[in-house]
Amino acid sequence: ITPADDEDTFKILVATDIHLGYMEKDPVRGNDTFVTFNEILDHARKNEVDFILLGGDLFHDNKPSRKTVHSCLESLRKYCMGDRPVQFEILSDQAVNFHYSKFPWVNYQDENLNISIPVFSIHGNHDDPTGADALCALDILSCAGLLNHFGRSTSVEKIDISPILLRKGRTKIALYGLGAIPDERLYRMFVNKQVTMLRPKEDEDSWFNLFVIHQNRSKHGATNYIPEQFLDDFINLVVWGHEHECKIAPFKNEQQRFYISQPGSSVVTSLSPGEAVKKHIGLLHVKGKKMKMEKIALETVRTFHIEDIVLADHPDLFNPDNPNVTQAIQAFCMEKVELMLDTAERERLGNPRQPEKPIIRLRVDYAGGFEPFSVHRFSQKYMHRVANPKDIIHFFRRREQKEKKEIDLNFEKLVSRPAEGTTLRVEDLVKQYFQTAEKKVQLSLLTERGMGEAVQEFVDKEEKDAIEELVKFQLEKTQKFLKERRTDAVEEKIDEEKKLFCSLSVHCLKNNLVRKKDCIYLFFY
Amino acid sequence: ITPADDEDTFKILVATDIHLGYMEKDPVRGNDTFVTFNEILDHARKNEVDFILLGGDLFHDNKPSRKTVHSCLESLRKYCMGDRPVQFEILSDQAVNFHYSKFPWVNYQDENLNISIPVFSIHGNHDDPTGADALCALDILSCAGLLNHFGRSTSVEKIDISPILLRKGRTKIALYGLGAIPDERLYRMFVNKQVTMLRPKEDEDSWFNLFVIHQNRSKHGATNYIPEQFLDDFINLVVWGHEHECKIAPFKNEQQRFYISQPGSSVVTSLSPGEAVKKHIGLLHVKGKKMKMEKIALETVRTFHIEDIVLADHPDLFNPDNPNVTQAIQAFCMEKVELMLDTAERERLGNPRQPEKPIIRLRVDYAGGFEPFSVHRFSQKYMHRVANPKDIIHFFRRREQKEKKEIDLNFEKLVSRPAEGTTLRVEDLVKQYFQTAEKKVQLSLLTERGMGEAVQEFVDKEEKDAIEELVKFQLEKTQKFLKERRTDAVEEKIDEEKKLFCSLSVHCLKNNLVRKKDCIYLFFY
Repeated sequence: ITPADDEDTFKILVATDIHLGYMEKDPVRGNDTFVTFNEILDHARKNEVDFILLGGDLFHDNKPSRKTVHSCLESLRKYCMGDRPVQFEILSDQAVNFHYSKFPWVNYQDENLNISIPVFSIHGNHDDPTGADALCALDILSCAGLLNHFGRSTSVEKIDISPILLRKGRTKIALYGLGAIPDERLYRMFVNKQVTMLRPKEDEDSWFNLFVIHQNRSKHGATNYIPEQFLDDFINLVVWGHEHECKIAPFKNEQQRFYISQPGSSVVTSLSPGEAVKKHIGLLHVKGKKMKMEKIALETVRTFHIEDIVLADHPDLFNPDNPNVTQAIQAFCMEKVELMLDTAERERLGNPRQPEKPIIRLRVDYAGGFEPFSVHRFSQKYMHRVANPKDIIHFFRRREQKEKKEIDLNFEKLVSRPAEGTTLRVEDLVKQYFQTAEKKVQLSLLTERGMGEAVQEFVDKEEKDAIEELVKFQLEKTQKFLKERRTDAVEEKIDEEKKLFCSLSVHCLKNNLVRKKDCIYLFFY
Repeated sequence: ITPADDEDTFKILVATDIHLGYMEKDPVRGNDTFVTFNEILDHARKNEVDFILLGGDLFHDNKPSRKTVHSCLESLRKYCMGDRPVQFEILSDQAVNFHYSKFPWVNYQDENLNISIPVFSIHGNHDDPTGADALCALDILSCAGLLNHFGRSTSVEKIDISPILLRKGRTKIALYGLGAIPDERLYRMFVNKQVTMLRPKEDEDSWFNLFVIHQNRSKHGATNYIPEQFLDDFINLVVWGHEHECKIAPFKNEQQRFYISQPGSSVVTSLSPGEAVKKHIGLLHVKGKKMKMEKIALETVRTFHIEDIVLADHPDLFNPDNPNVTQAIQAFCMEKVELMLDTAERERLGNPRQPEKPIIRLRVDYAGGFEPFSVHRFSQKYMHRVANPKDIIHFFRRREQKEKKEIDLNFEKLVSRPAEGTTLRVEDLVKQYFQTAEKKVQLSLLTERGMGEAVQEFVDKEEKDAIEELVKFQLEKTQKFLKERRTDAVEEKIDEEKKLFCSLSVHCLKNNLVRKKDCIYLFFY
C-alpha cells in the first residue's frame, strides 16, 4: 500500500507528546523540547505537508510557564504562517467541530491570518482543560489563531465524536479526535456504550477514518487503560498518543482490522527502556483509502541509554561477604557507564544536530545482601559528561519486592515514613486510604458526593500531581458545600489556604514526607 | 488648538491601567475588566483610530491567569484584526524599536497578519518583565502578533529612548515610551543624567513628540516618584500611566512647557477618592504639531461612591459616653449608605451599560473615644445591593495616627502582632528591618550585593506583593551565589522550597502574621 503522491494525496505530519517546557529550568536539558519542536515543524515545512496532527501533551505542564507559551507561539508563528496555500477543504460543520472555541472555524480559513500549515491537536493528560473556565493551554494557541484544538468533549457521561471532514482532490478523510480523559472514566463510558463515533451521512464507506486518541494503551490496571478492541472497527488508522515508546510503524489489530500507529514522545521524560527507543515522527500519506506511514528520525533528540545490572547474577564477580565488594560494584558500574558513553558518542558522531551530553541510566538490582554505594559521589564524576548526572544510577531490589506481601490496608501503618528501599506510591496510599475510609469512617462530605470514584480518576495522574489535584478537588467540593449553606465568610479563608496546601502537599511528596497529619488535614478540610 | 481631521490627522485612542484580570474570581466584579477592555477596543474601532496607545498595566497580575490571557487575545483578535487599512507608516528602524521581540517589526506590517488597529503599549509595574527570560505578559501578545510592546530598556544604569517615528500625510509623530521601572531607580538615573531621549536626525523641530510613561507622578517619598520637570522640554505631550485618577484633559507644565494627560485606570482597584472620579479614555487628534484630546466617557465602568464621616465632628449626634452611641453611629452610617445607593442608582439609570451593583465605601473616622461596630453584620445587609459588601465600611482613626510617635526601629517590637487599630505596613517593616540590620548584623551575603538598595525597589510595590517579591529576589541571589561556588546539590532544594516560601509569606501577610521567625528565615535563606 504505497500510493504515489499527487493532487489526491494528503500529506500529514504526525507527532505527539512533545512536552514543551519539560525540565525547562535544567541548565543542560532546558531547551531540548523547544529545539525538537522546531525540528518537527521544520520537517512539516520541508515536506510541504497539508497539515500537522498532534496527539496531545504538546505542553508538559497544565499551566505552562510564560517562557514555554512564548516559545511555542514563536515557533508556530514562524513555521506555520506563510503564503503557501492550504490545499484541502473542510466539509463538516466547523461550528460543531470547534464548538468550544471563541473562533469556531479552522485557522487557515480565517481571513485575518495567513496560515500555511494548519495544526490540529487534541489535548493530552498533561495539558487538559481545568478550572472554572475549563480552558487548556492549547486554547491560548487556538485563540491566537495558531492551532486548531479539536476532539474535546464537554460531557462526563456521554461522548459523541463528530469528525472533521477533510477533502483533498478525490481523497476524503474523516478525522476523529478524543482529548485525554481519565482512563477509568472513559473505560466505563465505553463499557456503558456511551461513546459514539458519528459517521458522515453520505458515502459512509468512501472515507478514510483517522482517529487520534491520548490514553493508556498498555494495561495499568483492570480498567485503567483503553483496550484497542473498544474502538470501532470502521476506523482505518488510530494515532495513539500518551505512550512514550515510539512504535510509529502502523501495526494491525487483527480483531478490529484497523491499524495503530504509536508515534511516541519526542523527548525522554522517564528513564525507562521504552524511552530509549529511537524517536521518530511520521509522514502519513493518504490517498483514497490507502495509506503509507513514512518514518522521520528526529535528529535533535538527546540520546538516552539504559542498562540493567543484577548483582546476584554475577556470583563470580561479587560476593556480599567480601568487605571490598562495594568498591568492586562501583568499579563495575563505572566500566558499564564508560561503555554506554562510548556507544552514545559513536551514535552522536553520525549526527551533528544531537545534543552533546547523553542521558545515561544504569539500573542496579542489589538484592542478595549487597549495599548501594554513594550515588552522589558517583554522579560527580560524570557532571560534565552526561545530561543527568544526579540520576545515572538507580538502585533497586526487584527480587525482594516480588516476595513482599501486599501492603496492609491499615492507614496507621501506611502513612508512616516508608521503609528504606521501598517507595510508597501516593496513588496506592490514596486508593487504600479510601478503601479503608469508606468502610469504616463516617465521611458524610466525602461519601455523599461519590468521592471514592473521583479519587480513582486523580490517582491515574502522575504521582507528583496526585495529592495536589486531590486537594484542589476536595477544596472545591468543600467550598461548594459551604456556599450552599451560606456561610460565605469561610470561603475567603479557604481560598487563601488553597495555595498553601498545594505547595505543601507537593513539598511533602517530593521529600517523601506524606504524614498522617497532613493527609487527614488535607482530605478532611 | 482644534485641528480638523483630514488625511494629515493622526487619531489615537489613549488608555492606560486596564488591569485585566483584576478580581477575576469575584462573583460580582469578576468580568468588569474584560467588559471595559472590550468597550475601549470598540471605541477604537468605531472612531476608526490609527492606533491605540496604552500606558502600562494592561494586566493586573504579572503572571495573568489563563482565562485572562485567553480573554485578552480574544478581544484583540476580534477588534484589532480586519481589512481596514492602516494609514500611517513607520520611518524609524523597527529592529531598534522592538529589539527584544522575536518578531522585531510592527504587527500591521507582518504579511501574515491582517491588522486593522495596531496597539502600542509600554509595560506597567504590574506587568513588567521578570524572571530569567525577562519576559512580560505583553510579550505573549506581541509574540502572537496582536500587540506592539515598546519602550523597554534592558540596562539598569543607562537608558536611551529611541522613538518610533510615525508619519501620516504631513504629520510626523516621534513616539517615545518608557516601561515601568522602580521609581527610585529611575529617579536616580535621571539625576545622574543617564536617561536620554534620542531625537530624529532630520528636521528635529518638525515632529510632534509624544512620550508615554508609567511611574508615580505624585510624590510618595523624596525620590519615590518622577518629577515632571525631569522630562525633556522638547516633548509636546506626556501620556502618564500608573496614576489611577482620570485627569485626561491635558494640563500644562508651565516650567517645561509640555502638556500632560493622565488617562487614569479604567477599573476601580483601590477604594480611594481618586478612583471615584468618572473614568474616561482619550481620543487624541494630532495634526502637524497641533493636538486635541477628546474625552470619551467609559460606560461599562462600575460606579464607585466614597464618603468620609468624622464622628468627632458631630458632638450633637454622637457622645462617646452614651451607652447607645454605637447603635446611633450604625444608623447614621446606614442612612449615608442609603443616600449613596440612591445617588448611584440615579446615575445608573442614565446609563444602561453600567453594571447594576455599585461599589460603595464609607470611611468612618472613629477617633475620640468611639468604638467601631461589627462590619460583618453591617455588610450582610448590603450583600445583594453593592458590589463590595465586605468592605463598605472602613474604620480609621486619623487624629490619633497623626499624634502617634514614629515607630521604634527595634525589630523585636515591630514583628509582634500589631496593636489593634494600627496596621503594620510590610514596607515599613522591611525598610526598618534593613536599616537596623545593615548597621548591626553581619550580613555578608546581603550587604555585599547592595541588598539595601534593592529592597527599596521592592517596597514600592503593592504591599501584598512586597514580601513575595523579596523572597523571590533573595532566593535568586542566593542561588546565583551558590552556583558560583559550585555547590549544585543545594539548588534543587532551594527551588523546591521557593514555592512554599512564597505562598507562606503571602499567607502570613494576609493574616497579619509577619513574625520574626518567618522574616529572618526568609531574608537570610
